[in-house]
Amino acid sequence: MRGLMMEYPLTLQHILQRAYRFFPAQEIATKVGPTMHRYTYAGFYERTYRLANALARLGIRRGDRVATIAWNSYRHLELYFAVPCMGAVLHTLNLRLSPDQLVFIINHAEDKAIFIDQTLLPILEKIAPQLETVKCFVVMGATSAADATLLTTLPCHEGYEQLLAAEEPQFAWPELDENDAAAMCYTSGTTGNPKGVLYSHRAIFLHSIGECMADTLAVSQSDTIMPVVPMFHANAWGLPFSMTLAGARQVYPGPHLHPRDLAELIQAERVTVAAGVPTLWLGLLALLESERYDLSSIREMVVGGAAAPQSMIERFAREHGLHILHAWGMTETSPLGTVAGIKYYMQDWPEEKQFAVRAKQGLAVPMVDVRGLDEDGQEIPWDGKTQGELLVRGPWVTAGYYHDKRGGAAFVDGWFRTGDVVTIDADGYMQIVDRTKDLIKSGWEWISSVALENAIMTHPRVAEAAVIAVPHPRWQERPLAVVTPKPNLEPPLTKAEIYEDLAQKFPKWELPDDIVFVDAIPKTSVGKFDKKVIRQQFAEYRLPTV
Amino acid sequence: MRGLMMEYPLTLQHILQRAYRFFPAQEIATKVGPTMHRYTYAGFYERTYRLANALARLGIRRGDRVATIAWNSYRHLELYFAVPCMGAVLHTLNLRLSPDQLVFIINHAEDKAIFIDQTLLPILEKIAPQLETVKCFVVMGATSAADATLLTTLPCHEGYEQLLAAEEPQFAWPELDENDAAAMCYTSGTTGNPKGVLYSHRAIFLHSIGECMADTLAVSQSDTIMPVVPMFHANAWGLPFSMTLAGARQVYPGPHLHPRDLAELIQAERVTVAAGVPTLWLGLLALLESERYDLSSIREMVVGGAAAPQSMIERFAREHGLHILHAWGMTETSPLGTVAGIKYYMQDWPEEKQFAVRAKQGLAVPMVDVRGLDEDGQEIPWDGKTQGELLVRGPWVTAGYYHDKRGGAAFVDGWFRTGDVVTIDADGYMQIVDRTKDLIKSGWEWISSVALENAIMTHPRVAEAAVIAVPHPRWQERPLAVVTPKPNLEPPLTKAEIYEDLAQKFPKWELPDDIVFVDAIPKTSVGKFDKKVIRQQFAEYRLPTV
Repeated sequence: MRGLMMEYPLTLQHILQRAYRFFPAQEIATKVGPTMHRYTYAGFYERTYRLANALARLGIRRGDRVATIAWNSYRHLELYFAVPCMGAVLHTLNLRLSPDQLVFIINHAEDKAIFIDQTLLPILEKIAPQLETVKCFVVMGATSAADATLLTTLPCHEGYEQLLAAEEPQFAWPELDENDAAAMCYTSGTTGNPKGVLYSHRAIFLHSIGECMADTLAVSQSDTIMPVVPMFHANAWGLPFSMTLAGARQVYPGPHLHPRDLAELIQAERVTVAAGVPTLWLGLLALLESERYDLSSIREMVVGGAAAPQSMIERFAREHGLHILHAWGMTETSPLGTVAGIKYYMQDWPEEKQFAVRAKQGLAVPMVDVRGLDEDGQEIPWDGKTQGELLVRGPWVTAGYYHDKRGGAAFVDGWFRTGDVVTIDADGYMQIVDRTKDLIKSGWEWISSVALENAIMTHPRVAEAAVIAVPHPRWQERPLAVVTPKPNLEPPLTKAEIYEDLAQKFPKWELPDDIVFVDAIPKTSVGKFDKKVIRQQFAEYRLPTV
Repeated sequence: MRGLMMEYPLTLQHILQRAYRFFPAQEIATKVGPTMHRYTYAGFYERTYRLANALARLGIRRGDRVATIAWNSYRHLELYFAVPCMGAVLHTLNLRLSPDQLVFIINHAEDKAIFIDQTLLPILEKIAPQLETVKCFVVMGATSAADATLLTTLPCHEGYEQLLAAEEPQFAWPELDENDAAAMCYTSGTTGNPKGVLYSHRAIFLHSIGECMADTLAVSQSDTIMPVVPMFHANAWGLPFSMTLAGARQVYPGPHLHPRDLAELIQAERVTVAAGVPTLWLGLLALLESERYDLSSIREMVVGGAAAPQSMIERFAREHGLHILHAWGMTETSPLGTVAGIKYYMQDWPEEKQFAVRAKQGLAVPMVDVRGLDEDGQEIPWDGKTQGELLVRGPWVTAGYYHDKRGGAAFVDGWFRTGDVVTIDADGYMQIVDRTKDLIKSGWEWISSVALENAIMTHPRVAEAAVIAVPHPRWQERPLAVVTPKPNLEPPLTKAEIYEDLAQKFPKWELPDDIVFVDAIPKTSVGKFDKKVIRQQFAEYRLPTV
């Protein structure tokens, strides 16, 4: 027997309309050069309608992919809503990818149009001639004389502001099905070509509601939220959608992502929630050692994309009174999967024990199911010890990759295989101990590179550390630590200091066979340690223990 | 183009499983006689599984309706989950209805089984012989010798505890579609037979998530929540579902609903959120004048089902430091429709102005659309003045009534007509000025009975007040106020006092033509003023102004 409730589709149209009706005066602020661009939800709403008309006039039809190459800004937000609400598919391109990867992705997605920040036009120069499906390029921001040569080579180009100015601020949105595609994002694996994840309206809608729940991110109309995580990285963790749904004040940093930019923005805009990868916050932590900012407006600094070292969580709390909220997710999971909030019965626990909980990746958020499978395909017990690959399931988890046959191996019995090796403790907190491919196999034992990295990064004189597996004739693999010392140390950091520290925390056989100091650790386009590149750099390296 | 996300159905099975996996040690406490029954989510989970097996053995199949006649308790909660999760439909019966109404409802819904509290068996006595479809009765609580005669007349009867004890604590839940029916509840209109609202899993699931959002009720695992609103009244406003989803501590008052019971429970159990109709809280307010309780654990007292007088909101705040959260909903809307939280830009407003906002019914919660239509079918402006009938739309709003042709008139263009006359102000706050049928038509003007009632109830010597329309030869209708003075007043309350007060707030023509003092104002089964009965009582009444 069916229920007798309304068939009300969960689409982004509801979010846009609600934002305008209930929060027309709420502000959206974007850092543009040395100043701030500010307007209200009402202004955003009107321009989004104009943009939808412009898209229609450019020939964009339902289901067409519209790509963006852009920083976090109000214009990008307009595209976030106009494109899906008119029935097309928003395709955010990672501007840090190589030209080859971008060409592959754009052609594979068959993007019809590309909206690009003027400052990013040099990217186009390298790829435009190879794009097979793009009919039109729209430039956001005033073009300069230097751009003229490039622009003449394009099949069609428009200025974003001129385009909007020519349109009416009304648009009759089509009726959408909640399962219609709304957005897509390619994820670059460690091998092969990037794979496309295709988000539905329903997935993004439920994910937005999920982020507003009291025990997840509690996104509220009383918040001022700054997504530092790029809008081309899993939709800036869905925050532009959940902020708009809640009616929160929005702050976009544009391309200004240096620790000083962020500290200044938090201070000036009274940001309550900021979200980004650990390296960003490690940078901020370093800055706060020498400069003072009033960051007291912060209620939560959300950290995801890579594991937050416990030492970082502790230092922000103890030295600056700032609360880090550790979360985990993937492009394939929209991305919110787990959040490491403290449970009711832990509130009286000693601080030290609470930090240990908060350094885990956390509890599965409502609507997401998690489990761990061991190598025999058996579900691991929730004992905090047994390791297994994390599997997830839920309405905002991908069911496959766009036009890609490699999808099959990523699923088992309707669950998505994350490739993360985890434990789940009796309280339900998931902890990533490694990526399946980053575990170090030493003899019959596994060594967690993540555990070693986190431990080394707790050393007060270490800035960053990555640990990789290096082939070893006797043990198969052994760990090598690549470490960046803090700047201007006197006396310089020594291996012995680090070993002394590690020896207290790990059995002897788990210690790295060597420690190498480098100026900087290679990172991926989204700020994670790029193990692939580090391995290449040390391909010829010979361990002293061989 | 379709999105490529998992088809993950939003069903109550997810809520049940999640509660067990993440909050097995969380407590559910029920007042049973002079003591408390306590167990954990793990215990609840196990018994719910046993109950599902018992239902199957009693012959309950998918889509079958299983009725309850019960107070708020852990056993009722078990039914809330076992019945829908095994694919059947939970049908909560309002135990305060007349025998005739109950017989109609049970036969109309074709209930297969009835689960009834032992203390409520006298209800069965009057209706059992007329029930056409019920195959079995299950009694919750130990039966007494006095029950024996009744029980022998039933076609089949079982004891709830014996039933559970005989079953296994495992059950293979069927795969459900999220649009499958999960629960039903009949609403008694002012005319004709009650009408059935049939909730789907999807509707209840989304409603549960909706109640956990930071800007609605913010239901959290760190809360202790006591639904005083009956579990047969729009699913206790959905709280048993949202509490379980969040992993909150649950407190059920059983049949103990006197102000002293509630004050004692809040104090002893450290309740953070309590929910009920205004008359309950008015009773508590009166109690607090003479007795002292520590109610400091409360973060929110949710009031709905009828308008909360502003004076009550103010008095709780000023005299007791307690925060009332005003909400609006109907059986047809699952029920949460609006919540009167304060917006970010109102936080610095003078207290008086904030109280005025909080006395409105509030902002539509996410996923619910609201609009007002005037008599010409035109949408009213959001100016806080123009009145219109409230229309709502959303995934948890009913699309019709169960096997009932009267449904058609309740809808217009896919919107549900609430019958409430409202204004919506520029901030988006909806305020009920009256029911369509409770407005008083005086000459060419409308008078709001609700506004008069609220004003009279602000008088410090008035306990309760209802205002009805009385026929008038010249003006068509004129208002009559029916007032209950506070007990033991010296000197007694006079009409003149009330008129003096009202004259400062209303134009002369809006003042009641008379004020009548009564010992008690008739109330409906869910605690609202029963205007129908009051009108009957005063059917022969002749206004002094005629």
